[in-house]
Amino acid sequence: MNPQYHAEALVRGIFSKDIAALSKAITMVESTKQQHQEIANIIIEKCLFKKSETIRIGITGVPGVGKSTFIARVGKLLTSKGNRVAVLTVDPSSNLTKGSILADKTRMHELVQDKNAFIRPSPSGDSLGGVARKTRESIILLEAAGYNIIIIETVGVGQSETAVHSMVDFFLLLKLSGAGDELQGIKRGIMEMADTIAINKADGANTNSAKQAEIAFRRALHLFPPKDNGWVPQVTSCSALENTGLEELWSIIESYTLKTKDSGHFAAKRQEQNKSWLKQHIESSLKMDFYHNPLVKEKLEALEKKVVNGSSSPFAVAQQLLQAYKEMKA
Amino acid sequence: MNPQYHAEALVRGIFSKDIAALSKAITMVESTKQQHQEIANIIIEKCLFKKSETIRIGITGVPGVGKSTFIARVGKLLTSKGNRVAVLTVDPSSNLTKGSILADKTRMHELVQDKNAFIRPSPSGDSLGGVARKTRESIILLEAAGYNIIIIETVGVGQSETAVHSMVDFFLLLKLSGAGDELQGIKRGIMEMADTIAINKADGANTNSAKQAEIAFRRALHLFPPKDNGWVPQVTSCSALENTGLEELWSIIESYTLKTKDSGHFAAKRQEQNKSWLKQHIESSLKMDFYHNPLVKEKLEALEKKVVNGSSSPFAVAQQLLQAYKEMKA
Repeated sequence: MNPQYHAEALVRGIFSKDIAALSKAITMVESTKQQHQEIANIIIEKCLFKKSETIRIGITGVPGVGKSTFIARVGKLLTSKGNRVAVLTVDPSSNLTKGSILADKTRMHELVQDKNAFIRPSPSGDSLGGVARKTRESIILLEAAGYNIIIIETVGVGQSETAVHSMVDFFLLLKLSGAGDELQGIKRGIMEMADTIAINKADGANTNSAKQAEIAFRRALHLFPPKDNGWVPQVTSCSALENTGLEELWSIIESYTLKTKDSGHFAAKRQEQNKSWLKQHIESSLKMDFYHNPLVKEKLEALEKKVVNGSSSPFAVAQQLLQAYKEMKA
Repeated sequence: MNPQYHAEALVRGIFSKDIAALSKAITMVESTKQQHQEIANIIIEKCLFKKSETIRIGITGVPGVGKSTFIARVGKLLTSKGNRVAVLTVDPSSNLTKGSILADKTRMHELVQDKNAFIRPSPSGDSLGGVARKTRESIILLEAAGYNIIIIETVGVGQSETAVHSMVDFFLLLKLSGAGDELQGIKRGIMEMADTIAINKADGANTNSAKQAEIAFRRALHLFPPKDNGWVPQVTSCSALENTGLEELWSIIESYTLKTKDSGHFAAKRQEQNKSWLKQHIESSLKMDFYHNPLVKEKLEALEKKVVNGSSSPFAVAQQLLQAYKEMKA
């Protein structure tokens, strides 16, 4: 079938909010087949022209922090307010059998059934770059299909948070109250990325320790330099289980959106993100081409050893490898 | 003159601790002339073979935190203990007239006069990459000349801290006590890089607020995940002016060195750093070659605009540019 024809049919479906067409289009985006990618590229370019007011929210937190229940409840809250909500995950290590939100049937059940919600688990892929790219392109499709709130979940222990941070408007870090969460292995630097920290599971016996955690995090955030957009990261508590604190959290996100749209930082951030995705994609392609070059591959290991044990300078070895690469290409 | 011959003469000088030869060799490293670079490369490869036990310490802090006085006093303390100390700065924006340590004659005077100390201001250069490379290569020369403690100063408000962090064994963050320092614009992420935070100017009326700052920072550091090498970042106070707390700080650095050498993390970190310098240099060369390509240059601006305003996908544009680049090279 003609890719153009195929793509146009799917785009019509997306624009008319047809879930089957949307799902199929995302499958094209996620596919590694040449023919599917051609179709996907046409779809994306067409969807880019359909502008709408949306907010992209990244949510991260270590396993056990209660992300699935949290997203299910927040999702329901948002659809009840008349929003259309889409949930994507970025987790290159996950698959349908471990940790995927679709496997969390019991927790996500209610949201899955909601006709104003769309949930899609992490695309498979062997590199974070590939997965992140697919996720980012899927956002375009979801927005063209009329979803105005896009939630991107990431697992908070890998490399994916930076990628997610660079594709969202607002980044939320979920934490647990009580000692020990700071040692649960959340990655360095994530706290600084957060636009808000929410202490989840602030219920029952945890209520007090959650308040204490709030104070500790507020104090810690205060030691960080202010964000470029002037936003002061907030700390709040909630219990997804008991459905408390979620309205307050949503007010924070709304106030963030309002303020940054007002000041122009919202639009500026998206433009900056587009630019940085362009750069990233160019640079990762250049690197791949270099490191997959047969001559480079052949020489790299031995030369790298000399650098590691300190018998050759990194710069001298880099020069040798680049020379070999250039000659091979010429 | 034959570069090999020239280089060998300088290397002999370096090995016999001849300051004039060392200075000249560093000038070769810093030079952008092709002929000088050839000489520098030979010198570096030869110096790499002269192994010695050294410690490389990075020191950062915002302007006004008292880095010059601090380094002068710590330097004197270390030479009085029988060490040979070299001080380099990495600050691409500095030159001899503004902020350079050599201009700080009054503060650095004592150390400049010390025959067991060697002080060299930031090499000039228009890119951080270039300056950082020169600094890193100079470290090799200094170590070959028998300096066993290398201090790298960086200004703490630019892009240079990450570069310095990736060339040192121990990273020290200087802070001021009292409200407001957290707003002095130290870059995001630097606190997480620190192996120790020292509250400087803990003297006179500041003594109390320094103690309070110590507590606040200790609390904040506690919220970060532990470092890979098992080291728990310390917080301490000192007054370079009154020469207090510097012995204690040095004990912390010695204990760090002992522990990480014992566990093998010290050597492993240097190997990792060598490897990452190799990768960085390769990748920045690939990027430079791409972005300086005339066809890429010609097309980039217009295409980037389409990405920024959201009318083209970053991935589609990247593909176009990479294609043009490939055809140009072929």
